[in-house]
Amino acid sequence: MSKQELKVLGRSDDVGACCSGLLTAPLDEDQAAELAKVFKALGDPVRLRLLSMIASRAGGEVCVCDLTPAFDLSQPTISHHLKLLRQAGLIDCERRGTWVYYWLVPEMTDRLAGILTRPAGEPLPARTAPAGAAS
Amino acid sequence: MSKQELKVLGRSDDVGACCSGLLTAPLDEDQAAELAKVFKALGDPVRLRLLSMIASRAGGEVCVCDLTPAFDLSQPTISHHLKLLRQAGLIDCERRGTWVYYWLVPEMTDRLAGILTRPAGEPLPARTAPAGAAS
Repeated sequence: MSKQELKVLGRSDDVGACCSGLLTAPLDEDQAAELAKVFKALGDPVRLRLLSMIASRAGGEVCVCDLTPAFDLSQPTISHHLKLLRQAGLIDCERRGTWVYYWLVPEMTDRLAGILTRPAGEPLPARTAPAGAAS
Repeated sequence: MSKQELKVLGRSDDVGACCSGLLTAPLDEDQAAELAKVFKALGDPVRLRLLSMIASRAGGEVCVCDLTPAFDLSQPTISHHLKLLRQAGLIDCERRGTWVYYWLVPEMTDRLAGILTRPAGEPLPARTAPAGAAS
């Protein structure tokens, strides 16, 4: 499961050809489609809160039973959001008896952080938007 | 315009309280809502390709007239996607005569990279998903 989902952004040896280029070279259509799935999973407030709760938990994992009470949402809705995060390769899980336990896949957040990081040493442009800038 | 949009993630002095905590502390509802808007803007293949084309352009800016031919989409559709990236604070623009020129707002991608970066020195967990993991 997790191996397949991690292929969304390729294994680490693919990253150079794929997604490290977001800020350094134009993405092709396939690269953009794969990467957009992961960002789309992050583009929802409930999923971001779930991810932050899972990622910041001491001990590294969270029972779904500890996640649900923080939201005014049904268990199936929470499970759906967790499924989307898992399909994006951002979290993984294990069922133990009644409950499912979730943890962060740090390789994926590391990868996203990497593709959003400018090449080393590149300064911020001094540019500022002039008055009257238009869309 | 750009100042207002950058408030999506707050100024740099707010980042500590807001978004650097994605992996280190649970986000509250307001923080998650603001941050989700930016990730949602990235959650589309066309917008990711546009962003990568703008970010990687030597000279730091791109005429919209150089972006449109790369897509099998109408000019208004491209402009709509560019508007969403601009509203998310990821790019900014200036009109000069007939054309609009776009450039990356690197402070925003830096900020996203920062909130997706684990605290310094934190090792990757040795964890692997066991067979039979369930959703």
